[in-house]
Amino acid sequence: MAKIIVEVMLKPEILDPQGQAVASALPRLGFTSLKAATSVRQGKRFEIEIQGDPTPTQLAEAEQAAQSLLSNPVIETYIVKVEK
Amino acid sequence: MAKIIVEVMLKPEILDPQGQAVASALPRLGFTSLKAATSVRQGKRFEIEIQGDPTPTQLAEAEQAAQSLLSNPVIETYIVKVEK
Repeated sequence: MAKIIVEVMLKPEILDPQGQAVASALPRLGFTSLKAATSVRQGKRFEIEIQGDPTPTQLAEAEQAAQSLLSNPVIETYIVKVEK
Repeated sequence: MAKIIVEVMLKPEILDPQGQAVASALPRLGFTSLKAATSVRQGKRFEIEIQGDPTPTQLAEAEQAAQSLLSNPVIETYIVKVEK
């Protein structure tokens, strides 16, 4: 059983209000060592579970799905990888 | 520059309507090889960017933040890891 993982994050130049909210909440809630964090970004993670190892066709289609269905290419980037 | 990554996913026993919507959209949109996917789950990914390597204190606080701020322990699980 393997998983095709698609990670979708906002592009670095796009403002991320959710991430900023987390970044400002962290020190306020007592996580003072994380005040040194230069940035916090929030994104999405999709796990597509496959029986056995993914075929090259499945990986290619996951890549296409990541681009057209799971992310917005105007503001987001994605990474496709496989986890066993 | 390292990143502390927090991945938050719904627990396996919790219904994931967003994941199900993706799972049913994939074959409909022509990604027929992914019809064989046994499940699609959608979760969240946080990237906390740190100058240099994270200290043990920062990692411990990220773990606590993942539990108390970034996930809902009733319905979600989380993983904390470091990416260089």
